[in-house]
Amino acid sequence: MPDHAAAFVHDHRDRMLDELKEFLRIPSISTLPENRADVRRAASWLVKKMRAAGLEHAEVIATEGHPLVYADFLHATGRPTVLCYGHYDVQPVDPIDRWTSPPFEPTVRRGNLYARGACDDKGQMYTHVKAVEGFLRHGPGRLPCNVKFLIEGEEESGGHAIAAFVPKNRKRLRADCVLVSDTGMFAPGLPTLDVGLRGILYTEIRVRGAAGDLHSGMYGGAAPNPLQAVAEIITACKDRGGKVLIPGFYGKVRRPSKTEISSWKRLPFSEKKFLKEEVGAAALTGEKGFSALERMWARPTFEVHGIRGGFTGEGAKTVIPAEAVAKVSMRLVPDQDPAAIMRLFAGHVAKVAPRGVKVTVRQAHGAPATLIDPDNRFIGAAVAALRDIFGKEPVFVRSGGSIPVVGLFTSALNLPCVLMGWGLPDDNLHAPDEKLAVENYFKGIEGTMRFFDRVGALGG
Amino acid sequence: MPDHAAAFVHDHRDRMLDELKEFLRIPSISTLPENRADVRRAASWLVKKMRAAGLEHAEVIATEGHPLVYADFLHATGRPTVLCYGHYDVQPVDPIDRWTSPPFEPTVRRGNLYARGACDDKGQMYTHVKAVEGFLRHGPGRLPCNVKFLIEGEEESGGHAIAAFVPKNRKRLRADCVLVSDTGMFAPGLPTLDVGLRGILYTEIRVRGAAGDLHSGMYGGAAPNPLQAVAEIITACKDRGGKVLIPGFYGKVRRPSKTEISSWKRLPFSEKKFLKEEVGAAALTGEKGFSALERMWARPTFEVHGIRGGFTGEGAKTVIPAEAVAKVSMRLVPDQDPAAIMRLFAGHVAKVAPRGVKVTVRQAHGAPATLIDPDNRFIGAAVAALRDIFGKEPVFVRSGGSIPVVGLFTSALNLPCVLMGWGLPDDNLHAPDEKLAVENYFKGIEGTMRFFDRVGALGG
Repeated sequence: MPDHAAAFVHDHRDRMLDELKEFLRIPSISTLPENRADVRRAASWLVKKMRAAGLEHAEVIATEGHPLVYADFLHATGRPTVLCYGHYDVQPVDPIDRWTSPPFEPTVRRGNLYARGACDDKGQMYTHVKAVEGFLRHGPGRLPCNVKFLIEGEEESGGHAIAAFVPKNRKRLRADCVLVSDTGMFAPGLPTLDVGLRGILYTEIRVRGAAGDLHSGMYGGAAPNPLQAVAEIITACKDRGGKVLIPGFYGKVRRPSKTEISSWKRLPFSEKKFLKEEVGAAALTGEKGFSALERMWARPTFEVHGIRGGFTGEGAKTVIPAEAVAKVSMRLVPDQDPAAIMRLFAGHVAKVAPRGVKVTVRQAHGAPATLIDPDNRFIGAAVAALRDIFGKEPVFVRSGGSIPVVGLFTSALNLPCVLMGWGLPDDNLHAPDEKLAVENYFKGIEGTMRFFDRVGALGG
Repeated sequence: MPDHAAAFVHDHRDRMLDELKEFLRIPSISTLPENRADVRRAASWLVKKMRAAGLEHAEVIATEGHPLVYADFLHATGRPTVLCYGHYDVQPVDPIDRWTSPPFEPTVRRGNLYARGACDDKGQMYTHVKAVEGFLRHGPGRLPCNVKFLIEGEEESGGHAIAAFVPKNRKRLRADCVLVSDTGMFAPGLPTLDVGLRGILYTEIRVRGAAGDLHSGMYGGAAPNPLQAVAEIITACKDRGGKVLIPGFYGKVRRPSKTEISSWKRLPFSEKKFLKEEVGAAALTGEKGFSALERMWARPTFEVHGIRGGFTGEGAKTVIPAEAVAKVSMRLVPDQDPAAIMRLFAGHVAKVAPRGVKVTVRQAHGAPATLIDPDNRFIGAAVAALRDIFGKEPVFVRSGGSIPVVGLFTSALNLPCVLMGWGLPDDNLHAPDEKLAVENYFKGIEGTMRFFDRVGALGG
């Protein structure tokens, strides 16, 4: 079936783009309580579309948090089974005033589809559903391999539901590999497979000072200031050179092999261009002695995401706030264990907390890093599928981001993961003007069809 | 007229309390653009009440910012003139959920009137208006001295309008002393005159990192984080012992005389009780080698009031924000010059700013500290008035807060200031549940009437 995939995509472009836009209009922000109903609506919408694509047993599975979506099509006797994973939830949209077009009104400009979730991950996960449709509704009426779908609605808010579901449903989820399209291509037109993901530990540091807010004139000089305390704790956790100061933090860090590091040096990547075109700051920062790619892919980090407390509006308020809260996350690399790092972090914060305040640390969520063996046969099938489309050899990269569920599939189901993503470096994930190249949406559908073909050819 | 003041207050209690409540219901928050019309409404209300009290030439004076209010009564030929100053604007009310009753619904509980502005400064400044009424409408129909009123609506937001107005209206404002009721009594029932105020320098530190918000997974380890930079700048400005690290910051600091410091030791003040009952933190903090009163009254400070940037809502967002802004103020003491300190601060911030970010510093407003000579005759008149009411000797204290206009009256008009305040240490200025003891409102009216009597007796 060499040309069926390309032909299917060619014939159904407009309809498939419109469907994705419909999906993107649902503001399924999983971290915000006020969007709870939208998240549920996105799940129902997806189930309907899965049925329309020909999938069986499609259902919304209620959980303690946001629902999971399951579907399957298991009629390729003797062939491997691919478990397709993705997420239908999206990040919040702040700062909303920095979007060129509204985040939930998908808009195509210069070949890109702009919307929250366009790339992360609605636009990418939906390629799997359309690939199935290409076989079942507009092709031979059967699939070259078996497929199961498990799609979650909490990837951006900790993934608690899927973490509870997977270990309890090993039989139902039995498969031979996992396919995830939630990563990116290293450069436009460069087929890419991701073989490493950082883990994450997301935390909150809460600092209490006085019993109530105080006037900085009356009390300044004698009352503790929780904002100052937060600044002191943060700077005691990471030095100006980007080195994390938590004792033991680097103890389990495994460095990439020389082969892997030297392969990264051959990638089309210029730190100068990256700084200028992607980051746009005065300079790149971070630990000395590591390249930027190594710092982003293979080194753990410590980042502050926000500091709440006091007065930040227009004008002036001379308050010493009673409380301040810092949101802080650490990216983890093999073989750092989130629970162990959490203990080290909490212990360090308690030690460096200044006088006069009470400090508590809470873990919001955590997941270990993942490494994938590039020699397994499903990675081989993906390499072949990508070579078919692009006519060139795919590169192996790592990603600085975290897809906690990949670690879960590895540990609970013992499945190899294929991270075949269609994003681009400037897709603005988690930021204003998130986008997906329209061409990559269609390449994703075609690539997934070819991957299913190649997996089917692997035999039992 | 020994008993007229007490009799007037006694006979008009309920009505005068109701009037104050009416004043407090106007949410005249000068720092918030959305309350602009409320600020103007408070000015108009005040002018109406000044006329009703018998004052002449009462008018709202438009400015580039919030309006000023002026009134006078100048028929005591050959007697001194008192310029009554106060402000009708109030602080913002955040965090609104920590108020027992809504901030703009004045409520009396256990002898206290709770509302934003009850103490700071509507409740206090209004005592002057009622004192005039006590003479002109319910007494002899004349005042023992001349009075002018100049009331501003921007005390909580920098006082730009009055700072521009006073030097240009020296003749209109000609007087012999200024009366300000915007400070507090050191303890309930202890008559107090304030003879020192700290100055202030309110600033904003703005830090820019990348061109846009970035995903902390993708970019963490290579992109600068403005929130981390803010923490680094803040901790480089003040050490953990409370010492400000800006070079030259303490160069012009004048220490109080030994006599003044030893008089503070005789005040009814226990650091332990202060910590427990007023502050409620785990410990008092601040520079070693100075008592808490000295740290709050006679030492300069550095306080962070808020840090904006990134994500601080419920849930988790893994963002490296493009920008962060810290609101920071410094309290100043004699003889620190706000402009000179601003230069030192800006220079230091530029020096300690970390790599990769662009930092700018902006001054929002500034005012020098003030010291008042306790031996001048108007302070003597206030001492006598307070002795009359309380039957005991008033104490001389300083205040850690700033009333920038006091410095202005001293420098532009060369007038001695009498700071006769009616607040109490637990009045929650600038915080939820601001209050004024109802008794102190009435004592304020009576005290102002007696002060006018004593000033009249000083002669020309």
